[in-house]
Amino acid sequence: MSLEFTLLHTDDRSNARLGRIDTPHGPIHTPAFAPVGTQATVKALDPRDLQEVGAELILANTYHLYLRPGADVVAEMGGLHRFMGWRGPILTDSGGFQVFSLAENRIVSDDGVVFRSHIDGSQHTFTPESVVQIQEQLGADIIMCLDECAEPHDRAYNEAALARTHAWAARCQAAQRRDDQALFGIVQGGIFADLRRQSAEFLVGLGFPGYAIGGLSVGERKPDMYDMLDVTVPLLPAGKPRYLMGVGAPEDLLEAVARGVDLFDCVLPTRLARNAALFTRQGRLNIRNAQFERDPAPIEAGCGCYTCQHFSRAYLRHLFKAKEILAARLATIHNVHFLLALMGDMRQAIEAGTFDAFKAEFLSAYPIIPHDIRAANRERRKSQSSR
Amino acid sequence: MSLEFTLLHTDDRSNARLGRIDTPHGPIHTPAFAPVGTQATVKALDPRDLQEVGAELILANTYHLYLRPGADVVAEMGGLHRFMGWRGPILTDSGGFQVFSLAENRIVSDDGVVFRSHIDGSQHTFTPESVVQIQEQLGADIIMCLDECAEPHDRAYNEAALARTHAWAARCQAAQRRDDQALFGIVQGGIFADLRRQSAEFLVGLGFPGYAIGGLSVGERKPDMYDMLDVTVPLLPAGKPRYLMGVGAPEDLLEAVARGVDLFDCVLPTRLARNAALFTRQGRLNIRNAQFERDPAPIEAGCGCYTCQHFSRAYLRHLFKAKEILAARLATIHNVHFLLALMGDMRQAIEAGTFDAFKAEFLSAYPIIPHDIRAANRERRKSQSSR
Repeated sequence: MSLEFTLLHTDDRSNARLGRIDTPHGPIHTPAFAPVGTQATVKALDPRDLQEVGAELILANTYHLYLRPGADVVAEMGGLHRFMGWRGPILTDSGGFQVFSLAENRIVSDDGVVFRSHIDGSQHTFTPESVVQIQEQLGADIIMCLDECAEPHDRAYNEAALARTHAWAARCQAAQRRDDQALFGIVQGGIFADLRRQSAEFLVGLGFPGYAIGGLSVGERKPDMYDMLDVTVPLLPAGKPRYLMGVGAPEDLLEAVARGVDLFDCVLPTRLARNAALFTRQGRLNIRNAQFERDPAPIEAGCGCYTCQHFSRAYLRHLFKAKEILAARLATIHNVHFLLALMGDMRQAIEAGTFDAFKAEFLSAYPIIPHDIRAANRERRKSQSSR
Repeated sequence: MSLEFTLLHTDDRSNARLGRIDTPHGPIHTPAFAPVGTQATVKALDPRDLQEVGAELILANTYHLYLRPGADVVAEMGGLHRFMGWRGPILTDSGGFQVFSLAENRIVSDDGVVFRSHIDGSQHTFTPESVVQIQEQLGADIIMCLDECAEPHDRAYNEAALARTHAWAARCQAAQRRDDQALFGIVQGGIFADLRRQSAEFLVGLGFPGYAIGGLSVGERKPDMYDMLDVTVPLLPAGKPRYLMGVGAPEDLLEAVARGVDLFDCVLPTRLARNAALFTRQGRLNIRNAQFERDPAPIEAGCGCYTCQHFSRAYLRHLFKAKEILAARLATIHNVHFLLALMGDMRQAIEAGTFDAFKAEFLSAYPIIPHDIRAANRERRKSQSSR
């Protein structure tokens, strides 16, 4: 058995669930957040850091690793776990998202996608069969079907893309050879409720050990994302894990957990950290600001992360101003720890039956940055090297 | 007492010495190498990394910290140890070397040096009194006198600079207020034996708790460096530590220890690491090379560092090719560990009476890269941000 999901508890007043996913590389306590290790490293962290901040599952990007160092190199080095020194569960995406956001000159057909590498312009083809094979070479515990990521507001494009995504899902299933990896289907359909319903029903019909919800990470307003979760999640089987791809803002994690999502991944905490934006329960602070020049306090009082236990805001500000490498690491440790501690608090609240109150209290203190489509698209264009 | 030096053993067949320096922040077992933390961080490492690789003493640069974040900020944050989270011994230089290599538009007079910041062009003055005061604000365990770093082959310049350096040393001594810091004098004199002798004798006459040997780190051939050590070291009191500034190539560490030097600092291991050049006992390897693409071996078999214990050459090559931040950290851990392990081996060999054999064996396997003055000057010009 590649993966076993145990539903431990469902909240009375919301759809929040407490669960555990057992994988060949250990358990994932859900709801869980997976830091993103695009190129076989969560940027600026080593595997010991990841363990210390409480990570159980990490994500790596098939597109990037296929291009560099090559899936065959990773396989020859003993697979992704051994290659990157991370012995816990790993999830790889299918590469679809990057092909549709990052690669150049892509040509989509029913067979697959021909694209040019963003690194050197070389031409490559991804088919449902090839991305399964690549992910089998990488060796993650959870792998994903190839999907076509359409612009979420374009009805006609979403209809056409969905047909392909569904056909590809069946072909991915058929292509799977290894029996120690769990292949997830990906629900698509943009911001269209009927397409989301159709997608969920089709994929559930195929029968996967878990279901992802794609296409909600960038480019659409938060209310649309929440609406699509309201439509999609109830159609997914209670006994399988549900994974919302590419979402990691604290308020979105709370709202999605409340709607029954179990797994998340996002570059947000790591990317923000490298840009000196640090999470606190009262909102983000930009540690470069002059107000922190002589501030002896940690980023957040009471935080248990290595950074907050040992260093002041004044020191972190100095490291960022002086462009020191350590700045990225200490900031990343804090931001990832922050989200993983938030997930832990959510799990505790679900178990205690106080999730609703926890969510309301958190959101009352945390100022939500309004989601702006143009800002999201700018971010998407900037994200040249990671999902 | 700011510092106590205990001479434990002197080698029979060389001038190599085993000793211990006790500081307010713990012991330094000599001969010792100090990694360089220019801007209050050894680039890419945190204090726990430093402890793990076996560092006891680290160096920080007065010039850099004076300019950013400012010695008053560091003092207000509780001093350098607390600011950077390093609780072991720290040495700060006087800033002289950077003023003469890095700053712009400098004007030297007998009173001190007026210079412009390499960061923002602002004008500043260092006097013997002010650099002592700045170092008292920073709060290192070992602090240095202001010296004038002359071009080592220019006789006339070295004569004039030496007169100033000597006068400044006396003024630094008189300016010292804190009694928990050890102020070292710096022997200068370029490659001129009589000037070196004159300098050593003058400074020993003033009476310092330790003596540095400056001006031998860049720009001169190795034989000249060794000759100057042969001239200088015998004139320094056996009961005080001797510190060769800015030297860190493995062969130079061995040759200088053989001549009776106790302390070293150098950016070499950290800077090489960031450029993918990794130490092994068979010489440096450039981990970017294609030959390492599928190499499952660690950087060096048998190495006890975190990097070699967990990661392959193939993975390190991938991190460097993919420009990942983790590359710098893992490579730096290895290179610093390599030099500190070499120092540990030297101490063991001195204690066992086998230093000569150890040195010969090491040097027979380690290919020495000939020191080229133009290359050294190129490196010096490139070192825009660190000693």
